Amino acid sequence: VGIDREKIKWNGWGWAAHRHPIAGREDVWNWLAQQLGMPSLLATPARPLDSITLPVSRLSPGLFAEFGQLLGPERVRDGTHERAFHARGKSYQDLLRLRAGDFSAIPDVVLYPRESNEVTAILSIAERNGIAIVPFGGGTSVVGGVTAHAENFANLATIDLSGLDRIFEIDVPGHSVHVEAGIYGQVLEKALAAKGLTLGHFPQSFEFSTLGGWIAHRGAGQQSSRYGRPKDWLLRARMATPRGMLESEPFSSSATGPRLTDLMLGSEGALGIITDATIAVRSLPKQSMWRAWFFRDFPSGLTAIRRAQQDEIAVSMLRLSDPQETQFYRALSEAGKSGHVGSRVAKTYLTARGIDEQACVLIACFEGSNRRVATDAAAFQTLARSLGALSLGSRPAERWRAERFQAPYLRDPMLDRGVGVETLETAAAWPQLENLYRSVRTALETAMRETAPYPAARGIVLCHVSHAYPEGASLYFTCIFPRNLDAEVAQWQAIKRSATDAIAANRGALSHHHGIGEDHLPWLAQEKGALGLDVLQAIKRTLDPKGILNPGKLIPR
Amino acid sequence: VGIDREKIKWNGWGWAAHRHPIAGREDVWNWLAQQLGMPSLLATPARPLDSITLPVSRLSPGLFAEFGQLLGPERVRDGTHERAFHARGKSYQDLLRLRAGDFSAIPDVVLYPRESNEVTAILSIAERNGIAIVPFGGGTSVVGGVTAHAENFANLATIDLSGLDRIFEIDVPGHSVHVEAGIYGQVLEKALAAKGLTLGHFPQSFEFSTLGGWIAHRGAGQQSSRYGRPKDWLLRARMATPRGMLESEPFSSSATGPRLTDLMLGSEGALGIITDATIAVRSLPKQSMWRAWFFRDFPSGLTAIRRAQQDEIAVSMLRLSDPQETQFYRALSEAGKSGHVGSRVAKTYLTARGIDEQACVLIACFEGSNRRVATDAAAFQTLARSLGALSLGSRPAERWRAERFQAPYLRDPMLDRGVGVETLETAAAWPQLENLYRSVRTALETAMRETAPYPAARGIVLCHVSHAYPEGASLYFTCIFPRNLDAEVAQWQAIKRSATDAIAANRGALSHHHGIGEDHLPWLAQEKGALGLDVLQAIKRTLDPKGILNPGKLIPR
Repeated sequence: VGIDREKIKWNGWGWAAHRHPIAGREDVWNWLAQQLGMPSLLATPARPLDSITLPVSRLSPGLFAEFGQLLGPERVRDGTHERAFHARGKSYQDLLRLRAGDFSAIPDVVLYPRESNEVTAILSIAERNGIAIVPFGGGTSVVGGVTAHAENFANLATIDLSGLDRIFEIDVPGHSVHVEAGIYGQVLEKALAAKGLTLGHFPQSFEFSTLGGWIAHRGAGQQSSRYGRPKDWLLRARMATPRGMLESEPFSSSATGPRLTDLMLGSEGALGIITDATIAVRSLPKQSMWRAWFFRDFPSGLTAIRRAQQDEIAVSMLRLSDPQETQFYRALSEAGKSGHVGSRVAKTYLTARGIDEQACVLIACFEGSNRRVATDAAAFQTLARSLGALSLGSRPAERWRAERFQAPYLRDPMLDRGVGVETLETAAAWPQLENLYRSVRTALETAMRETAPYPAARGIVLCHVSHAYPEGASLYFTCIFPRNLDAEVAQWQAIKRSATDAIAANRGALSHHHGIGEDHLPWLAQEKGALGLDVLQAIKRTLDPKGILNPGKLIPR
Repeated sequence: VGIDREKIKWNGWGWAAHRHPIAGREDVWNWLAQQLGMPSLLATPARPLDSITLPVSRLSPGLFAEFGQLLGPERVRDGTHERAFHARGKSYQDLLRLRAGDFSAIPDVVLYPRESNEVTAILSIAERNGIAIVPFGGGTSVVGGVTAHAENFANLATIDLSGLDRIFEIDVPGHSVHVEAGIYGQVLEKALAAKGLTLGHFPQSFEFSTLGGWIAHRGAGQQSSRYGRPKDWLLRARMATPRGMLESEPFSSSATGPRLTDLMLGSEGALGIITDATIAVRSLPKQSMWRAWFFRDFPSGLTAIRRAQQDEIAVSMLRLSDPQETQFYRALSEAGKSGHVGSRVAKTYLTARGIDEQACVLIACFEGSNRRVATDAAAFQTLARSLGALSLGSRPAERWRAERFQAPYLRDPMLDRGVGVETLETAAAWPQLENLYRSVRTALETAMRETAPYPAARGIVLCHVSHAYPEGASLYFTCIFPRNLDAEVAQWQAIKRSATDAIAANRGALSHHHGIGEDHLPWLAQEKGALGLDVLQAIKRTLDPKGILNPGKLIPR
């Protein structure tokens, strides 16, 4: 079944055996303490699972047996690690709770179907018996998308979809693939690469998230400028519901009324469970070229991104760090080697070139045929130079690429040391973008100050443009702050509330690629409007009349 | 108000004063009679409007006054031409009926709002008084999308949206435009061109269709390979419903559950009335290069189209005629100059190059920067040559481009001479495409034979690939046949039924760019499934509880 769940952390990120290289670097941690205004970092270890008593599963022996009969007893699990692993996703809040041994949310049972008709059969049993269902792909939601609790239901079963991982067909001349939705991203990409193909969807969760999860939360991979989002590459899908299977229209580019496929995109397990999909894939690019630039400031970097999109310079990715993020990562990489002569020389040189503390690093990727890549990279270099940017060559970009799935591993050692860290993201049209940026940054800074555990403590806000479109771009914020250990969940909720209010007030998207889940639900009416919510609720009632699917996520009752 | 309706034909295509150059060419008509196995063409003129007595408007004086108070009396119209003009769209069936003076469908009144809040106010009055509403943009539907009849309603009002035609903002740096939905395509393009921008949406109806109609029926323009479809360029919209205004999410590329915007795409006036939209536009291309090729046969042309899409050769359009269409248009252009020495020489040359009666003309357009266009055109030429194709240079393609909005004008003189002509279209993934092509062609040929007015009469089927995608393509069929004057509507319905059954049986899209309307409704359950239809009906009930919006179109009761 895909990845052995016992080898993945139940209360943190990724492989249990993996450790981020920075975890043991005391010089870095001392530097971070200083940045956060903390005399020293604290020791805040997680509670080990064997020290915690889980709530007893409420599932009756009869239902346990019924599921066992359907799936085979080995695929109906209620072991401690199984239930703990499936209790929550991977948001900061989730981890705080799991690390504290708070199992206010936990499934009664975890089911591992291996056929789409087993999924519909599970839904029939659940519908008949009033069991809430939480669909679980890789479980990497950071918005409370898989939290295993449901008001008004006596039982909750999590359906782990990692057993639905077959590749039915790779149609090389048709550039399309029919595959089950529980397949891990990395497994799918490996199979495609063997045929010279790629989907090119690389979210930061890539190693631990699944195709179905990508579709269900409507996200974007890091290289979406080239490879698109699920709405671009999803051709057809099937979605199991308590009312039976909902199937896509036969061809995606058509004029046959509103598309059912579009209702599966972003359905977040609340409208149904995506069992399999046909997706459009591409030939592996002949070349991938990674390059970095220093822009003089954030606005000139934004201009470069906007104009590259609008002038049809084909990029695979453009990622622009704001001055604070640029400086933070430069300082982080220099922590422990302060006073380094090379860095002082470099600084003098950069200052002479107009690169000061307002500077912003931009990382770009160009992909395609050798000629295309050369043309596009040259066009972007011309554009960047015209805006006063300084080329940094390939090394910083190649390094970013090599480490791009590592960042989530940094959270666990931070959480071990009294440091809070979380990300949130939004998107807006170009005319709104700079205002949105400033408002969210200010909201985060203010809220972190107001919730600081003591006066000298201070939080850090980093931001980058993560995805770009001709009409606008996304903003990805990272907050790092000293935890208020007496009220750490409330502290984060206050910070998050403040930022999300600022997003809604400035007409930003509630989320660019994380989704709604539980965490964004209170703001959904502001984004969809009352009538829009009525429509979503009508769709939900039609597909899931008793509301058993992922209750409390995506769609308000 | 946009285009003066008095200057457009009420029972045919386009400007009343315009005449297709072929209309008076008796040599061409004689040739066509021969092709159709008719001893000679017939005279089947349309009935003039002043010879027809329209059904009396059923709208009460009270309601007439109420609408007049809302809009001003000059924008509440029930004149003969007004009502006749808004009775139906422009399908072959529609024209047959209108030309015969059949006004079984006709609005009681035509309303011309000029503000979006007037649209919602009209809907309130209609909701309160049980008046069916038909929204009307350019009225060019060819699938019965604007037919002015509604079972179970005492009154029917058509809302002509051509008064909602303001451009609120052209944001040049943001490459986006906020505009009212009733604006004509050609008016919008002219305003954009003045700012160096283009939407690039050129359906064959371009001169007489509106932005709102384009969005509402989810179609595609001829150059959609470059400019995309409404789903690609629609950023945000507002849709008036009897329950109030439904508004899009603030940013189109987001992860906030199913998109309301996606429900407006293809809503066909049955879910609401699109009042205004923000659309993504592009810079006018520096260059547009039009080229044509002869492919040896249809399969090799299809391969070229598929590989161009998949190999990332950027095209604006690829249009491949099948052998029958290729020969028909060559013969048409040579009709009246038979025995021409040049054409015999050309034929000998072509035969020597492997171009015989299986040959297929492909027309391509390349757009963008001069360098891009040169690179892409060269790449396509290399691909075409590798498949044995022969370049025809630019002239045939430029000629096609110059005449591309003229074809609909050909129908009226054909209808005047006892000839039936209609088009229909579908789309499918590459693996299904050739089967679909053969099945629909056979179905059309068989049905035309079976419904022929006399044994020697024969119909002609022409087909071309009109739009291409990496995953598949569309097929556009034209049928030309001698009419059975005793049962001409039934004759066409039998032909259409036969073709549509073949489409549904072969997993083709019910429509690639024409829409559902009334004409495709009987097959919708096959495409959407019973559960899918339930979902669409639930959405409809939520937005339009009394079902006043475009009854009988898109969504079955």
